[in-house]
Amino acid sequence: MSLPSTQKAAVKVGTGDASRTEIRELPVPEPSPDQILVKINYSGLCASDKSLLLDEWGSTGILQQPCTQGIAGHEGAGTVVKVGSNVQDLWQPGDRAGIKWIASICRKCEFCTNGVDECHCPKQLNSGFSIAGTFQEYCITDARYATRLPDGVSDAEAGPLLCGGVTAYTGCKRSGVRPGQWIVIPGAGGGLGHLAVQYANAMGMRVIAIDGGDAKRDLCLSLGAEKFIDFTTCKDIPAEVMSITKYGAHGVVVISATRQGYEQAPHMLRPQGTMVCIGLPKDGTVIAGAPPILMVLKKLNIVGSVTGTLKDVEECLDFTARGLVRPILTHGDLGDINRFLDDMGAGRLAGRAVIKVAA
Amino acid sequence: MSLPSTQKAAVKVGTGDASRTEIRELPVPEPSPDQILVKINYSGLCASDKSLLLDEWGSTGILQQPCTQGIAGHEGAGTVVKVGSNVQDLWQPGDRAGIKWIASICRKCEFCTNGVDECHCPKQLNSGFSIAGTFQEYCITDARYATRLPDGVSDAEAGPLLCGGVTAYTGCKRSGVRPGQWIVIPGAGGGLGHLAVQYANAMGMRVIAIDGGDAKRDLCLSLGAEKFIDFTTCKDIPAEVMSITKYGAHGVVVISATRQGYEQAPHMLRPQGTMVCIGLPKDGTVIAGAPPILMVLKKLNIVGSVTGTLKDVEECLDFTARGLVRPILTHGDLGDINRFLDDMGAGRLAGRAVIKVAA
Amino acid sequence: MSLPSTQKAAVKVGTGDASRTEIRELPVPEPSPDQILVKINYSGLCASDKSLLLDEWGSTGILQQPCTQGIAGHEGAGTVVKVGSNVQDLWQPGDRAGIKWIASICRKCEFCTNGVDECHCPKQLNSGFSIAGTFQEYCITDARYATRLPDGVSDAEAGPLLCGGVTAYTGCKRSGVRPGQWIVIPGAGGGLGHLAVQYANAMGMRVIAIDGGDAKRDLCLSLGAEKFIDFTTCKDIPAEVMSITKYGAHGVVVISATRQGYEQAPHMLRPQGTMVCIGLPKDGTVIAGAPPILMVLKKLNIVGSVTGTLKDVEECLDFTARGLVRPILTHGDLGDINRFLDDMGAGRLAGRAVIKVAA
Amino acid sequence: MSLPSTQKAAVKVGTGDASRTEIRELPVPEPSPDQILVKINYSGLCASDKSLLLDEWGSTGILQQPCTQGIAGHEGAGTVVKVGSNVQDLWQPGDRAGIKWIASICRKCEFCTNGVDECHCPKQLNSGFSIAGTFQEYCITDARYATRLPDGVSDAEAGPLLCGGVTAYTGCKRSGVRPGQWIVIPGAGGGLGHLAVQYANAMGMRVIAIDGGDAKRDLCLSLGAEKFIDFTTCKDIPAEVMSITKYGAHGVVVISATRQGYEQAPHMLRPQGTMVCIGLPKDGTVIAGAPPILMVLKKLNIVGSVTGTLKDVEECLDFTARGLVRPILTHGDLGDINRFLDDMGAGRLAGRAVIKVAA
Repeated sequence: MSLPSTQKAAVKVGTGDASRTEIRELPVPEPSPDQILVKINYSGLCASDKSLLLDEWGSTGILQQPCTQGIAGHEGAGTVVKVGSNVQDLWQPGDRAGIKWIASICRKCEFCTNGVDECHCPKQLNSGFSIAGTFQEYCITDARYATRLPDGVSDAEAGPLLCGGVTAYTGCKRSGVRPGQWIVIPGAGGGLGHLAVQYANAMGMRVIAIDGGDAKRDLCLSLGAEKFIDFTTCKDIPAEVMSITKYGAHGVVVISATRQGYEQAPHMLRPQGTMVCIGLPKDGTVIAGAPPILMVLKKLNIVGSVTGTLKDVEECLDFTARGLVRPILTHGDLGDINRFLDDMGAGRLAGRAVIKVAA
Repeated sequence: MSLPSTQKAAVKVGTGDASRTEIRELPVPEPSPDQILVKINYSGLCASDKSLLLDEWGSTGILQQPCTQGIAGHEGAGTVVKVGSNVQDLWQPGDRAGIKWIASICRKCEFCTNGVDECHCPKQLNSGFSIAGTFQEYCITDARYATRLPDGVSDAEAGPLLCGGVTAYTGCKRSGVRPGQWIVIPGAGGGLGHLAVQYANAMGMRVIAIDGGDAKRDLCLSLGAEKFIDFTTCKDIPAEVMSITKYGAHGVVVISATRQGYEQAPHMLRPQGTMVCIGLPKDGTVIAGAPPILMVLKKLNIVGSVTGTLKDVEECLDFTARGLVRPILTHGDLGDINRFLDDMGAGRLAGRAVIKVAA
Repeated sequence: MSLPSTQKAAVKVGTGDASRTEIRELPVPEPSPDQILVKINYSGLCASDKSLLLDEWGSTGILQQPCTQGIAGHEGAGTVVKVGSNVQDLWQPGDRAGIKWIASICRKCEFCTNGVDECHCPKQLNSGFSIAGTFQEYCITDARYATRLPDGVSDAEAGPLLCGGVTAYTGCKRSGVRPGQWIVIPGAGGGLGHLAVQYANAMGMRVIAIDGGDAKRDLCLSLGAEKFIDFTTCKDIPAEVMSITKYGAHGVVVISATRQGYEQAPHMLRPQGTMVCIGLPKDGTVIAGAPPILMVLKKLNIVGSVTGTLKDVEECLDFTARGLVRPILTHGDLGDINRFLDDMGAGRLAGRAVIKVAA
Repeated sequence: MSLPSTQKAAVKVGTGDASRTEIRELPVPEPSPDQILVKINYSGLCASDKSLLLDEWGSTGILQQPCTQGIAGHEGAGTVVKVGSNVQDLWQPGDRAGIKWIASICRKCEFCTNGVDECHCPKQLNSGFSIAGTFQEYCITDARYATRLPDGVSDAEAGPLLCGGVTAYTGCKRSGVRPGQWIVIPGAGGGLGHLAVQYANAMGMRVIAIDGGDAKRDLCLSLGAEKFIDFTTCKDIPAEVMSITKYGAHGVVVISATRQGYEQAPHMLRPQGTMVCIGLPKDGTVIAGAPPILMVLKKLNIVGSVTGTLKDVEECLDFTARGLVRPILTHGDLGDINRFLDDMGAGRLAGRAVIKVAA
């Protein structure tokens, strides 16, 4: 396969709210012996791409570094075009591959070897952050941590599932809610939320979706939610959850990145219920928690969740391959990123945005 | 057995900080068909007795009701002297019995029948709160929920174990820390803490005790702590925990009822570590929690714990019967309660206070 | 409500294979203060009723005692007609109630109080065994252990769910198979099996049903099985399971009470997979197990499961109330029991048999 | 460091029971880019070395292949003397390293990437079996799967811990027995058993040791067992276990590789108890299991366990580094292997045999 020497990439310019991306011509990168080069067909546009491109996380003291080469993107799906010399038993040119937030892990530390969770590897590289991301036509990534895309999942679908999908999926798993039990999903009609509704439903949970307006209601109910609470009209959401569930929900997955979302969630739970933290508010003073007396008397659980392991991603894609979870997509190309960032900020983006990258 | 018609009890008088107990002569209560009457030999004095006697929890909006008949106490150990007509197969006069915070449960609700945890029964009665407590010579309690005291545990020891002990024990269990892993216990030298150190040690955990001063250091190390951090001299406790444990502790049991205790705890944890909430600060604005980005990136767990089930209490007492956990006691009688309340407030009570009730 | 003084019951006569039931007129029993009297509308006919009525379990050394008064039946659904004096806060005449294999528990022993599983109470009474069962028009049972029947579940459906349904449901739970993972159900088209297929499906598992013939194939696929293996034509069932699942199934629920069922099951499992034992072969020499080297190298799990707790039954009924699980019923009345026993023995009974008991 | 070109190795000659090892001079192997070369100071002699050297497992249909180059041994501890070109960031000459049964894994399959257990990797190489083992002075092994030996554990101790120790440790973990609960260890005085007693004790379990004779009794009690049952005098071991534990033990770890060991174990368990299979009987007809009616009525668990993950090995060594577990060793050199094999067969080897390999 003959490869071009240059490619198009969407590169960050400016700082803070004034940041934008602009299309530039850059060299096609060369994979190291342990890497593959993937021609990106589609890349999802994640809320954290927005946060990184607009320098929103500066105040949190974490993740302050700008994205490498200014190229964000960590939900890339495409075709392998070049394979490093050490990993030719793993990949062939033409294989379909996915690139994720975690681009590589060290495979040596406590977390890479402890049989629990490589996601905490302190030497991990992150796509679109510490290594250039998927908003470029040709992207390099670690061959052993890239994901093989299964039949039945298109590249356009795979992109947003590789981060948004797995985040929704592991959030549902982390809730510990069993089939037949109640899970509440605030922000159920959004990009992550509409996926969480589908995963929870496919896992046998009973879903109470929370969002605003009739369009969101119709969407959530059509995706398998059993109840919908409209925050634009409901005066006391926890009370409404209590009235539906009698003793409270078994789990709440806080997808919404708001103070209100975090403050209300513990009050929707039954004794021993679990609140899963996912959303990352811009406001650094928000605390995910509850008063000690509430924690103690109800023996509540509050847990954090983010993306997932290599195995979680496989499981997540499998739900779509089986026809159980379908992302709702808003399509665009590299030139639409700026507009989508605006739309995300204004809350008017339907489902997940996905960028057609290489022709 | 001939019983007197009247008895001595320590009764709450006054309100708020000005509350005291005073010794009064009251009728000996009569057990209902499902109850037993227990002659209280010893009763522990718990921090929550202080909170109830001094009306400290008013501001939390929970547990506002004053204790029934003004008689607090929920760590009572003694001898059965009368048995209700329905439960004569369960108890004989002369049996040793323990009375706990949970005096009775409904045995019918979701929580009494769900095979998980009767502690959330909404119709439970609580000793020293919704039913008169153990600061009286003769106390009635539900026969089916009273605890049989095993050989090898004296009444004086059993009292404080029935609430303080089981709270320390279940807190350690709830941490999920496995043998060989690190647990941090702030307030390790106190009434609850010195028990938690012993339970954690008996469960194979490696204990980092936090408290102030050389006496506490010596105590904690003698009870099985592997490391001691003196908060009066250590400038950065989370950093010290990190330096001992490399990636952070697997669990922290927040026994101390302070804002600082709750704020520091999440920063001592390794990825996927667990913070157990036990202490109940007077200040109603304290939140047990952490910033969402910390919860999420480290996939932390924050869980509440309080007392334990009937079975937890049995397990807890068994550690003492086997010689593995010994409460340090400060002895007094009903007339010493006021002084002990002052001592607790001033933080100068060694171990757990235990009251000799009936002669 | 005025009650008759006598009633009809199906009473065991004869011994061993020659046993039959015959309809007799017996006194209506009187509930004790802790019992309710239930007018039985429908009662399921369980395989263990057959085993008890035909003395099949003699050789196992367990459960040798004949059923009390010769009245079998432990899947009864009907209406409360009289309430004992101690439990009038629990039940009202006219309430719909279910009677189960476990009729009462002691509420005092290790197992009744250990927060795990009351099913092991050594003092339990069993309906149709150590207390007269539901093949009579009026049956007494412990008020605290009877099950409230929810709306959306008819009496005819509730009967077979109270034992067969909950056995199928807890068997699926006990497998530990997660949503998206593979479960194999040998005997999937039978009375218990067709329920297990539905529960597994509702819990998000991927079902491989095993049974014989096209009618069973159609049934299993219509109830949610993803794959069907016909044992009348498949030459190597474990190999077929391996070919579908690549590394083996995550779980197998051995419903079939055959030597072959138990011998093949471990060979269908992937490493760390779980085999659930449910079926009870007549042949006392059958062992549920596997060669140690297979157990060890694959770290397999073999677990037993039977009926369920009070809470499991509630959960089980809830799936039917929500429209997710529907038992297939073969209807009859008390006079049909003998014929149904023959049909069960010959394997020609479709779904679960349910007896219309009281008019 | 200058390395010799040849070395001594103990090489298998003959077949079946007539097999022996003989000392030969062989070339020192050369590590590949991903391997290290370890100068073996000590190597444990495991029961499975005996089985492989004497072709005992032929009848099981598994593991029939003879050991590569005839060199057995998979409990090797020593010093790194050469490091492959790809892994020089991982190891330095002079580092202390351990070689285990699992010598390398593929890091690509379902099991290597599923976050649970790499031990099932179908492409794993096994030391002393599919790759030459540790009964040679210089042994190559995969750099990423070798174990770093901690301070406080000598090479002689580390050897037997790398397989025997971790097998005993994971067997105890797999039992699910919690601190304060009962575990039975048949074969407690043997090579694996005396380690299991120590791990169980360090994990807070109450140990019932089973073995024969007063020397074993003294040993087991000195290592932390609470009770000892002498199989040479006890007529009914399960009954004795029941009498100690009232309802049966919470777990049994079947270390002994006998039919009797497997048959008795399930009868020692309380409801929901767990039997862990470890021992591998020569007799291929032994089944690890129980009659279905026992499995079902008691909801027993039977699970297999073998060696452990990379992380398990670290945890296991840590108990010795902390002074909690000390293997009892019988020392010899390469020339003693034949004699030790005889001693193992005759059951007269005390503790674990450890071979001094390189001078």
